[in-house]
Amino acid sequence: MSITFSLDKSTRTLLYQQLAEQIKSAIVRGELTEGMQLPPVRRLAAELGVSTTTVAQAYDLLAGEGVIGGHVGRGTYILSSPLTALARARAPFGGDFQASSSSLSTCQRQRLDWAAGWLGGLAPQASRAGRLQWLTQRALERWGDPSTLLNLSSGYPDVSLFPIERWERSMARAGQLLAEEARRAASLQVLQYGSTLGDEALRSYLSHYFARFGFQAEPQEILLTSGNQQGLDLVARVLLAPGDPVFIEEPAYLAALDIFEQQRAVCHPIAVDEEGLRLDLLEQALEAPAVRPRLLCIVPTAHSPTGATMSCQRRQQLVELACRYNLLVVEDDYCSELFYDESRCEPLPALRSFDREGRVIYLKSFNKLLFPTLRLGCIVAAPPILARLVEGKQAFARGASLPLARALLEHLSDPAFEEELNLSRQEYRRRRDTLLNLLEEELTGLECRWTVPTAGFNLLLVLPSQLQEYEVIEKAADRGLLLAPGQLFRVENSQQQPPSVRLTFADKSPEQLREGVKRLSSTLRALLHGGSCSQGQASPDLFTAV
Amino acid sequence: MSITFSLDKSTRTLLYQQLAEQIKSAIVRGELTEGMQLPPVRRLAAELGVSTTTVAQAYDLLAGEGVIGGHVGRGTYILSSPLTALARARAPFGGDFQASSSSLSTCQRQRLDWAAGWLGGLAPQASRAGRLQWLTQRALERWGDPSTLLNLSSGYPDVSLFPIERWERSMARAGQLLAEEARRAASLQVLQYGSTLGDEALRSYLSHYFARFGFQAEPQEILLTSGNQQGLDLVARVLLAPGDPVFIEEPAYLAALDIFEQQRAVCHPIAVDEEGLRLDLLEQALEAPAVRPRLLCIVPTAHSPTGATMSCQRRQQLVELACRYNLLVVEDDYCSELFYDESRCEPLPALRSFDREGRVIYLKSFNKLLFPTLRLGCIVAAPPILARLVEGKQAFARGASLPLARALLEHLSDPAFEEELNLSRQEYRRRRDTLLNLLEEELTGLECRWTVPTAGFNLLLVLPSQLQEYEVIEKAADRGLLLAPGQLFRVENSQQQPPSVRLTFADKSPEQLREGVKRLSSTLRALLHGGSCSQGQASPDLFTAV
Repeated sequence: MSITFSLDKSTRTLLYQQLAEQIKSAIVRGELTEGMQLPPVRRLAAELGVSTTTVAQAYDLLAGEGVIGGHVGRGTYILSSPLTALARARAPFGGDFQASSSSLSTCQRQRLDWAAGWLGGLAPQASRAGRLQWLTQRALERWGDPSTLLNLSSGYPDVSLFPIERWERSMARAGQLLAEEARRAASLQVLQYGSTLGDEALRSYLSHYFARFGFQAEPQEILLTSGNQQGLDLVARVLLAPGDPVFIEEPAYLAALDIFEQQRAVCHPIAVDEEGLRLDLLEQALEAPAVRPRLLCIVPTAHSPTGATMSCQRRQQLVELACRYNLLVVEDDYCSELFYDESRCEPLPALRSFDREGRVIYLKSFNKLLFPTLRLGCIVAAPPILARLVEGKQAFARGASLPLARALLEHLSDPAFEEELNLSRQEYRRRRDTLLNLLEEELTGLECRWTVPTAGFNLLLVLPSQLQEYEVIEKAADRGLLLAPGQLFRVENSQQQPPSVRLTFADKSPEQLREGVKRLSSTLRALLHGGSCSQGQASPDLFTAV
Repeated sequence: MSITFSLDKSTRTLLYQQLAEQIKSAIVRGELTEGMQLPPVRRLAAELGVSTTTVAQAYDLLAGEGVIGGHVGRGTYILSSPLTALARARAPFGGDFQASSSSLSTCQRQRLDWAAGWLGGLAPQASRAGRLQWLTQRALERWGDPSTLLNLSSGYPDVSLFPIERWERSMARAGQLLAEEARRAASLQVLQYGSTLGDEALRSYLSHYFARFGFQAEPQEILLTSGNQQGLDLVARVLLAPGDPVFIEEPAYLAALDIFEQQRAVCHPIAVDEEGLRLDLLEQALEAPAVRPRLLCIVPTAHSPTGATMSCQRRQQLVELACRYNLLVVEDDYCSELFYDESRCEPLPALRSFDREGRVIYLKSFNKLLFPTLRLGCIVAAPPILARLVEGKQAFARGASLPLARALLEHLSDPAFEEELNLSRQEYRRRRDTLLNLLEEELTGLECRWTVPTAGFNLLLVLPSQLQEYEVIEKAADRGLLLAPGQLFRVENSQQQPPSVRLTFADKSPEQLREGVKRLSSTLRALLHGGSCSQGQASPDLFTAV
C-alpha cells in the first residue's frame, strides 16, 4: 500500500503541521496501522521536497501525542493510540475490536458496527490530559514493572501526605451534623434542591477562608464546583463563543488548553518569565489593532508547568491593565497554599485582592490540596458575571453535592488543617530542593536550563535545542523514566520553542528523584552523543511524495 | 416613551413568538421596566393588525417565563425577572443595581459598569429550570407566607421520607473503609487521580444493581456522573453538533429541553400517549425524507410531566426501530424504582435490556431516589460510545468524587435499602391515589383531563382550552397555589397545545393535596365564569403598531 501526502506551501498551516495531520488522518482511515514503520526523516523529506526539520517536527508532534514512537537506529513506528482505536472502531466489526473486547458483556459483543458509522462524523477529542494519560499507560505497558518505572510526568500531589484518618472523622462528623440539622429543622429540606450556588454553610466558611489570599467574598459571590476543571469549563462555555480569542500563558496549564480548544476558542499565548506573565508582551498584544481577546486565563501561583509565581507588583499591574483594556481575568488557584518562600508565612495576595472592579474571576480547587478524587472547588466572581455562571451551572449540572461540601467544611475548619498545610509545605519544599540539587549535580555540561519553582508540584526542564522532544521521551521511557513533553503545555500553533519536559517532584521521595535524574541524565547523554534525529533502516514503500 | 413592534408575516417565526421576543428585547434594552403596564390584548391586537389570539399567546409565553404577570381586570405588568436584572446590569452603574446589592462586598460595589458591556453581547440563557425557579420565588414573595403557600409545581421527591440516620452511618462507614483501604494499600493511591470512569467499587456494585431493570453492565461500561443533568449534557456535547436534529417526547422533561436548547440542537417532538412515546409517529418521522435525527431522548418510566410509563411491548419495538433506522436512544432513568403497579414486584425492564446492538445510552440518577443534593449518577453505554463520553468527562470535569461514591455504595448495598424503597413506593402511591381522587371530586364539570401516573412524582392536568395557561398560573398564585406551566415542558416552536399544568403529588401530604386541589378548583371556576383573556384598563401609550 502506498500513501500519498500532499503538502501545500501556499496555505497558512505550517508544513510540518500539515504532514502530521495527514499522517493522523491516514491512521484514522486505517491506512497506517499499529506497528507499521514510518520512513526515516531524511528519506521522507527528500521524497516530499521539504527540509528534514519539517519532517522531524511532524514526527516530534506526533510522538508527543503518543501517536508514533521510535528508537534511534531502529526506526519510527505507529503506536497503539486513541487514533488506532478509532480506526478499529470504524473498521467493519469482527476483527481487532472483538479481540480486544473480551471483557465486554455478551450483548455488547454482538454487533457494534453501526457505532463506527454513527461516530465517524464526529471529530475525535484527543485532549492533552488524555494524551498524557496515554503516554503513561503505554510507558507502563512497555516497561512492564510498575514498581521500578519512575513517573516524573504526573503533575500530582503526594496523596500519602494526606491525613486520611482525619478525613474519616470529617466524613463521620459531617454525616452526624447533617442528620442533626435535618432533625432540628423537623423536615429534611436541607437535602432538597436548593440554591445552585451549593451548600451555604461551606460558602460561608469559604468567604473567610480567602482572607489568607488578601480578599473576602460574600457567600452569595461563591459558586461551588467540582474543581477548577469544571470551573474553567463553565467560564469558557458561558462567556466565550466558538472562535473567540483568549489570552493564555505560554507555556500553559494543559487542562486549560484542553478546555479552550474544546470550546473552539482561539488561544493567544503570552510568554511567562520567572516573575510570571510578561506584562510588556500582554500590553503590546492589547495595543495591537487586530484581534483583541476579552479574557485572559492565568495561574499566578504555582504556574504549571514552570512552578513560577507572579510577583506582587505584577499582580497589581495586571489588574490595572485589565481595567484599562476591559479584560476579564480568570485566576486559576489550585494550590496557592503550597508556597515555598520561607520568608513569608502567608501566600501572596490573589489577583482578586487587587481587583476593585470585579474583573477577576477567581477559581479555587481543593482537589490538589487535599486529594484529587475529592472533587470540590468554587468560583468567586462579581454578581453580574456570577449570575451567568450560575445559570450555566443550573442547566449543565445543577448545584454541587451537599454531603461532600459538608465533609470538606468539617475538614477545613478543624484547627489541625493549618498544621497539616505547614507539614505539606515543608515536605514539598524539601523535595523541590532535592530535585534542584540533583539537576545541578547530574546535568552539568548538558546545556539544560530549568525553572526554580516557588510553589506547586513541578518545574520545567528546557533541553538542548539539538534534541527532539519525542526522542527524549522515548529514550527515557526505555530506561523506565516517564516524562511529560513540554509540547503538551503549548498552544498548538505557537512559534517553535526549544524542547522541554515537565518534571514533577511533589509525589516522589528523595531516592526516587535521585534515580529519576540519573536515568534522565544518562538518556540525555546517550542522545547527545549518539545523534538526535531518528535514522532508521529502510522502510517499506509506505509513502509517496506529491 | 413609545415602543415600536414590527411583526413580519413572511418569515417562518410565528407572529406571537416575534411579539414575545420583541417585548423581551425591549425589557433587556431597558425600554420596558419592572411594573410597567402592557396594553390589553384586544387593543394591542388591533394596533398591530393581528388576532387577539396572537397577542394572548405572546403574553402567555412571557407569563410562563415569569417575565410578565397580570390580574384579570387589572392589567398585565412587566415583572422583575432575569431580563430586568440584565437590563439593570447593562444600565450605567449607580441606580438599581447598587440599591439591590447591599450585601455585596465593598470592592464589588464600586464599579461594575464594564460588566454590562462585557456581557451585553452574550445571549441570556433563561433555562426552563431557571424560569420555574423564578416563578416559585416570585410566588413566594407575593404570597408572603411560605407556610401556607402550596407549591404543586416542584417536581421534587419528598426528602422527609429519606432515612437520614442511615445516611449518617453510610458516610461514617464509607470514611472508615476508605481509611482502612488506604492503610492496607500502604499508600493512599486510591485517593489519587484514577480512571475517569470513577470509583471502581461503586461501578462493580452498580453492574449488578441494574439486574432489577433486566440488564447487566460491566464496570468498565459505567461512567459515574453527578446525575442525569450532567449525563445528558455530556451526551449532547459529545455526540451532537449545533444544529443537529434530535427526537424528544412531547411533552418532555424540561431539563432535557434546556440541555438540547443550550447545545443548539433542534428538537423534533414526538407525542406520547398513556403507553409512552407514539411509535407510529416516530416511524413516520423516521420515514420522512427531510431532516432525520440520529438521536432520541426519552424517559420511558415516570415520564415527566405525565408520569406515564412506556409499555413493555413498546420498549421492545422502540429498540427494534432504533436498530432499523440507525438511531441512538438516550434512556433517562431518574426513579424507575418508584413504580406504582401493584401487580409487579420489579420495575419494567429498561430499554437497554432489549438492546443487542448497544444503541441505548442508559442514564441513571440516584439524586431523586435518595435526595436531590446527593449529586451522583452514571451513564451506561457501549464501549465506542462510552469512550467518547469518557474523553469528554475527562476534559470537562474529570472523574466523579470518590468519597461520595463510597458513601452511596454503603447506602445502596445495605439490605435496608430495598425495604426503604418499598416504603417510599407505598407512600408515593398513596399520595398519587389521593390526588387522583381529589381531582375526580373537585374538578367534575370543568372539562379538565389528567394523566394517571404509574411511576414518579407528577401528573399532567390538561385545562379547558378556552383558558390561558399564564392566567391560570397567575390566578392560582393569588390564591397561594403554585403550578408549573405546561409550556415549560414543550418544545418552543411545537404546534399549539391545550393549556396544561404539571402537578406534583410526591412531596405533599394528603391534607396539602386536598387544600391544593381546592384552590385549583376555585381558581378554574373563577376564570371560567369570569372570562379568560386579561381585560385591563386603558394603559399609557406604550405601544405603537407598525
